[in-house]
Amino acid sequence: MLALIRICHGIKLYLGDFMKLYESLAETLREHIEQGFYQVGDKLPSVRRLSAEHKVSLATAQQALWLLEQQHWVEVKAKSGFYVKARQSAPPIPQISRLTQYPLEVSQWDEVLDLLSCRERNILNLGRGLCDVTAPTLKPILRLLSDSIKSRGQQLLAYDSLAGQIALREQIARLGVASGTHVQAQDLIITTGCQEALSISIQAVTKPGDIIAIESPCFYGVMQILNAHGIKALEIPSHPTHGMSIEALEMALDQWPIRAIMVIPAFSNPLGSCMPDANKQRLLQLAQHYDVPIIEDDIYGELAYKQPRPRTIQSFDQEGRVILCSSFTKTVAVGLRVGWIVPGRYRNRILHLKYISTASAVSITQLVLADFIEQGYYERHLRKIRQQYQIGRDSIIRLIEESFPESVRVSFPEGGFVIWIEFPNDFDTVQLDKRMMQHHIKIPAGSVFSASGKYRNCTRINYSRAALDEKIRDAIRLVGQEAKQLIMDTQNQK
Amino acid sequence: MLALIRICHGIKLYLGDFMKLYESLAETLREHIEQGFYQVGDKLPSVRRLSAEHKVSLATAQQALWLLEQQHWVEVKAKSGFYVKARQSAPPIPQISRLTQYPLEVSQWDEVLDLLSCRERNILNLGRGLCDVTAPTLKPILRLLSDSIKSRGQQLLAYDSLAGQIALREQIARLGVASGTHVQAQDLIITTGCQEALSISIQAVTKPGDIIAIESPCFYGVMQILNAHGIKALEIPSHPTHGMSIEALEMALDQWPIRAIMVIPAFSNPLGSCMPDANKQRLLQLAQHYDVPIIEDDIYGELAYKQPRPRTIQSFDQEGRVILCSSFTKTVAVGLRVGWIVPGRYRNRILHLKYISTASAVSITQLVLADFIEQGYYERHLRKIRQQYQIGRDSIIRLIEESFPESVRVSFPEGGFVIWIEFPNDFDTVQLDKRMMQHHIKIPAGSVFSASGKYRNCTRINYSRAALDEKIRDAIRLVGQEAKQLIMDTQNQK
Repeated sequence: MLALIRICHGIKLYLGDFMKLYESLAETLREHIEQGFYQVGDKLPSVRRLSAEHKVSLATAQQALWLLEQQHWVEVKAKSGFYVKARQSAPPIPQISRLTQYPLEVSQWDEVLDLLSCRERNILNLGRGLCDVTAPTLKPILRLLSDSIKSRGQQLLAYDSLAGQIALREQIARLGVASGTHVQAQDLIITTGCQEALSISIQAVTKPGDIIAIESPCFYGVMQILNAHGIKALEIPSHPTHGMSIEALEMALDQWPIRAIMVIPAFSNPLGSCMPDANKQRLLQLAQHYDVPIIEDDIYGELAYKQPRPRTIQSFDQEGRVILCSSFTKTVAVGLRVGWIVPGRYRNRILHLKYISTASAVSITQLVLADFIEQGYYERHLRKIRQQYQIGRDSIIRLIEESFPESVRVSFPEGGFVIWIEFPNDFDTVQLDKRMMQHHIKIPAGSVFSASGKYRNCTRINYSRAALDEKIRDAIRLVGQEAKQLIMDTQNQK
Repeated sequence: MLALIRICHGIKLYLGDFMKLYESLAETLREHIEQGFYQVGDKLPSVRRLSAEHKVSLATAQQALWLLEQQHWVEVKAKSGFYVKARQSAPPIPQISRLTQYPLEVSQWDEVLDLLSCRERNILNLGRGLCDVTAPTLKPILRLLSDSIKSRGQQLLAYDSLAGQIALREQIARLGVASGTHVQAQDLIITTGCQEALSISIQAVTKPGDIIAIESPCFYGVMQILNAHGIKALEIPSHPTHGMSIEALEMALDQWPIRAIMVIPAFSNPLGSCMPDANKQRLLQLAQHYDVPIIEDDIYGELAYKQPRPRTIQSFDQEGRVILCSSFTKTVAVGLRVGWIVPGRYRNRILHLKYISTASAVSITQLVLADFIEQGYYERHLRKIRQQYQIGRDSIIRLIEESFPESVRVSFPEGGFVIWIEFPNDFDTVQLDKRMMQHHIKIPAGSVFSASGKYRNCTRINYSRAALDEKIRDAIRLVGQEAKQLIMDTQNQK
């Protein structure tokens, strides 16, 4: 009976979500392991038995087991079979930072510019926040682009409406349901990437001199928006697993005239934390109590390794207090520059700021994304890429365990593709970065993620291709070696 | 000898600028008319004589004469030949406005939004600032797009560098020479259309509460940037032929702490004025004396009907005081959203603002424009489209003479594709607009081009397709009829 349900489940997924049968079977087996149905050391059923029980071919059963092995759920014992593997003793997670006492002005533009210009200088930036645009599941975009040119012709050269292409807004509205965000296509506003979405949203609810509460550590792109507009950052300690501390936020709201709360609840950048729904609700209640808007960045939400994906804070909001920003730049391709805003009660002001910012977005990239989603390629791509990123996370954690100093702590993201690495307190990633630059490799000093210069002992590393690209794996190993050497050199100097 | 020079001239143009031989011959003849070599009523040489003198085929000579006829330089008399035509007694140009006494905050967002949303509401907006994207000379863009997808593949999905694609920046640097702007590709910054260029540039040199000197009337897109950032506008009277009054600007600089001067010297929107070089130099001297930056919008510069095109103010600048903004949105296609900034001494700040505004632009549209320019299609398109717009201007002026109240004044732009129409002082274009809306036709009330509510008796009309599209011609005639009726109704009420 269980087998039958599983097969039906598999077929449903296969039809509905383009998941292959062996992937579906592997997922079923993985769920059994996670639920304790199979324990560490247990032998999984043989290929022949899986084939019979789940009504799949021998080849499909074999592929499912290989996939589980690749994902490190099982290990093969010669002439015996597949056994459930002990989950690695992952390194401890980073420590939560202390509360910053005062709102601060942001600086560090030079450091950010240095990170942004790596490619032009032929430097491998391990800390970059870019997704893998070489994924085979993105290839249909190129065909759809060609088709679009043929079918739409010079129409592609015309002006887009201020709010963006309605065909794409309809697809985004439809996708929003998975995160609990119910929005009408006509309310959505398309932007040139998520950076424009965030920049407009922040400007819509603050003015120069205002204070905004941000996560700590915080994505430097957001902090640079504050810098450019003379807005002060109040850094709220954030937990590597649960995200922004609600207690610390409450204290801050009580003490300071905070004008907005900026948060990435789903797989925050750089921590990879995911805020529990209860915390989202408490955060929303606080925002209501102190009457401040929330700017929610959901750019990594669709990259949750476990489905269903986390709900948005916006999905709990009944009064348009949450401005939801997102984008296809992390899920599909950064070069398409297509983001969007669910503007809530701030729609008119946000539309105005979109007009003065860029007037309208490129039509062709919007239309091709609408096609990509509508024809089911987006869902298929997401399934594959989430798997790639999950394998990448496990892969980079193993690399860190093998090559990095033992004292290191790392985050354990359940979505996205960046990991946060914490060295001992007296470690200096600025020094490490200098050493890495001799190998033409860049790692960001953690202090670029803080207005108060915290996290100088931390760094962020991208693992989107950590399981696939030997050059990147070698570079990560080298970071570990240089970090060990730096610790030894520092100790010798003492 | 003259003929030989002309032929050489023709060949040079033919090779260098993709001008066809008959176009070159027509231009030569037009110059002769303008220089008085042929006077009104004079007969031009016959086809046979032109062919012999200019060493071109009979067909080429015939085509040249037809083109001149189409452009209304000559008229044909049956069985006699082509005669120089009397230039029409064009209506008088609009009056220069009076000085505004104080810097003012800008409002009028609702009126602008109303203009921007016409297409979605199926309303023909005669006042729109959009170029003709249906021109046959734009067709190569579609083929180049397809080629680019084939040759560049998934590379198109990757991140662009912060300053933009170097291939395009090199082409823009090369093109700049025609306007006297000498800039290195590495100094240029690509933006998402000219609106982002202007928005960033204004933010780079002002802060909320500052005063900026603008032309009056002024493009509403610029005024809305001021509105959004709390910057005050000081409107400087501008002449329909010569642009911003240098005397009025000097008085204003003397009286107010102006932080920047924003100007469109080449075919200002909406006046269509073109600032003489002497005035550009005086304006630059004033900016030096009062130590303020100049933001120069050159978006219409390449659409000069007479070549060589006007010089930029930037071309006179030795100290990086001028920030030059431009775009392909008026010359090629608005939907590509590709603009740029020559940032002068403000490069670092402008690069920062670009990062926080949109981080980077779409790659594919930049690359295809680089190909379009490099392969000579851009020059060919410009030649054709300038001609189309010049014919469009003459065409709309004739339509206005035929259909509008006699008391009307109109600008006479030597480039671009918008005309400024001034009705008698007590005329109300808001009322006219209301009447036109009953026909689903929109004309902007002139007051949207002023922070102080001036120009309520004026409007702007687009003539990019005024010679080609009977529907637009009918709509323009209808504006004239309704304007006449409105004047009669107002007089009857008195």
